Amino acid sequence: MESRLSSRADLILDSCIMRLIAVAKRPGMISFATGLPDNSLFDTEGLRRAADEVLSGDDAKGALQYGEAEGLPSLRKRIADRCRKETGIRATWENILLTNGSQECFDLLGKMFLDPGDSIAVENPGYLGALQAYSVYGPRMIGVDLLDHGPDMRQLESALSESPKLFYSIPNHQNPSGVSYSESARREVSEMISGSETVIVEDDAYGELGYRGRAGKALSSMTNNSVMTGSFSKIISPGMRIGWMTVPDWLLPKATQFLEAFCLQAGSFTQRVMDRFLARNDMDAYLKPIRAEYLRKKNLFSDLMEDMLPESFSWNDPDGGMFIWLRTPEGTDAMRLVDAALERKVVLMPGKPFHVRGGDNTVRLNFATASDEEMEEGMRRLREAASAFL
Amino acid sequence: MESRLSSRADLILDSCIMRLIAVAKRPGMISFATGLPDNSLFDTEGLRRAADEVLSGDDAKGALQYGEAEGLPSLRKRIADRCRKETGIRATWENILLTNGSQECFDLLGKMFLDPGDSIAVENPGYLGALQAYSVYGPRMIGVDLLDHGPDMRQLESALSESPKLFYSIPNHQNPSGVSYSESARREVSEMISGSETVIVEDDAYGELGYRGRAGKALSSMTNNSVMTGSFSKIISPGMRIGWMTVPDWLLPKATQFLEAFCLQAGSFTQRVMDRFLARNDMDAYLKPIRAEYLRKKNLFSDLMEDMLPESFSWNDPDGGMFIWLRTPEGTDAMRLVDAALERKVVLMPGKPFHVRGGDNTVRLNFATASDEEMEEGMRRLREAASAFL
Repeated sequence: MESRLSSRADLILDSCIMRLIAVAKRPGMISFATGLPDNSLFDTEGLRRAADEVLSGDDAKGALQYGEAEGLPSLRKRIADRCRKETGIRATWENILLTNGSQECFDLLGKMFLDPGDSIAVENPGYLGALQAYSVYGPRMIGVDLLDHGPDMRQLESALSESPKLFYSIPNHQNPSGVSYSESARREVSEMISGSETVIVEDDAYGELGYRGRAGKALSSMTNNSVMTGSFSKIISPGMRIGWMTVPDWLLPKATQFLEAFCLQAGSFTQRVMDRFLARNDMDAYLKPIRAEYLRKKNLFSDLMEDMLPESFSWNDPDGGMFIWLRTPEGTDAMRLVDAALERKVVLMPGKPFHVRGGDNTVRLNFATASDEEMEEGMRRLREAASAFL
Repeated sequence: MESRLSSRADLILDSCIMRLIAVAKRPGMISFATGLPDNSLFDTEGLRRAADEVLSGDDAKGALQYGEAEGLPSLRKRIADRCRKETGIRATWENILLTNGSQECFDLLGKMFLDPGDSIAVENPGYLGALQAYSVYGPRMIGVDLLDHGPDMRQLESALSESPKLFYSIPNHQNPSGVSYSESARREVSEMISGSETVIVEDDAYGELGYRGRAGKALSSMTNNSVMTGSFSKIISPGMRIGWMTVPDWLLPKATQFLEAFCLQAGSFTQRVMDRFLARNDMDAYLKPIRAEYLRKKNLFSDLMEDMLPESFSWNDPDGGMFIWLRTPEGTDAMRLVDAALERKVVLMPGKPFHVRGGDNTVRLNFATASDEEMEEGMRRLREAASAFL
């Protein structure tokens, strides 16, 4: 019966994300592989209290019933207020659509924009989970190399001249590379997009995780051809599955219709829990210790890398997010390092799958998930793996 | 920029479901329109306690973290056990994939099976929400008339001879018509499907809401060409957004990949709350008062219809679910009745949008949402609307 599947079954990219999460859970494993935030930073007690208040409050029945397709208005208002204040975008709460995690936004946008044969410009490397969501719709992917402070502008210009439907971008602390766009890159990209027929999908998953605050203004504050996606997964809880997108007026009716067609609505209950949780927390105060802890872990991890990894390896020093981007020597195949590490019970994420082209000598390292002790032990094992690799 | 949207933007069916929910919430409105379960039957205290236990227990961090793409194993086991016991299907827990409500299953199945130009057989009338999800993928819809005890077998045979990818079916207390398949219809449909290249999507959303227990064995217990979809939305809470599908072995790897591509995973937190809630409840004991209450409401509603509606209207007497299917006289346009009712602040759901062909003289009535007082007042208003209509 497999022959009865749609052509999308051949088009869909393989992603090792969830498989890695499963491997990383095996006993004795130390994971630098996944995109899991640090468990110990979850405010379980605050969320417990919020859930308790929701289900013992006046609107408990409402929390368990169907609600609006677009999502809970009060939560959409909080998100819009925060977005306006932090990113400079002009969206009102009506422009915010809530989803079950921002991954669903990528599926929705792929579905709404991409016919077979269409193209989409993507950062090279780019976030694999989103690339997988788009791949289902069969687009040609035009890779735009990501440099130290933003995309290669010549490549982006060339890509836009092919009139791709979308340009998928993570301007802040990108997954996988940790790169943030500079101010001038933001301006330049926004201008190019404004002068094009391309809609930018600005993925802000890590926007609130800048160690010293936001890395810069949102591209979406400088162009109307844009949809910004966001999430509470990295700063509050991924298991609650609350994501959103800011949808421009011209796209709103269709986006709402597509959202309804694929899930009716995201979760009434979790939206109310999140709304209540946010009502009790000043976001800047809430984020302060989280940002500080990720900075501390990044520094510890960098120091361990400096101490233990060979001189022929190089890496960056991100100013936010949860990833360090490792390069093994030019011409080597980092997949062998990943294998050597796995033999020593350290799970790494190869950089290659994030690429449309190249990237053989890259590895994505997550320093957020492991405890300090795991980091140290994991880095010792990685040192052994690196010796075997070289 | 609208011209940049994919061809799906023209293909997608309009659905009034969520719009009706919004209209029905306006002050003074009485709704017989939506598919909302009865609020008063939600066990808010039981769910509050379950949420509290999850977030104060040992696995609180796990509930807030990313988990398996397929969903929480313990909840999948409970669902598989219940399915085996109640419906006769042979699925193990590994065959169960959890989604954010069963609506997401329809999107996933459409995406996995339907290329443009493919066809799908659907009950006529059929559930609009699912038809909308499929419509995005551009299939030709082959309507199979739903008769009093199952599909028109000649039409089904003829439809299957066109080799549709899927046959979408609700054998128990169908939305919108309330019809359940007879035992012989179940056997006949299963045999036809087994001998075909078509996969049946057996939507069991109302399977647990038979007033005197299950209406019959699952088609999926009699054929392997099947995916069964289920949900806690009608019996526990729609706002928790927990649905699932039982996926045969041959489809499991691809289905998991597609699931991951579009949402990474459904909600870790709500899955644990539901798992804990189910651990504390014997399902049969839990369902008993709910089934009894829906039966009571159905009887009250039927009696009111009998008392107040004109003789030229006809309707059925369902043995489960939350809908009564009303027919106005042959040749009349029930949309006029819907409008006349709306003028009198009663929201009805026209039957026409559930149809691939015909259905002009039909209306779907939900007797589950309104209170007894609202039912009586609503039916008085509907009587007036009927007078104006005739």
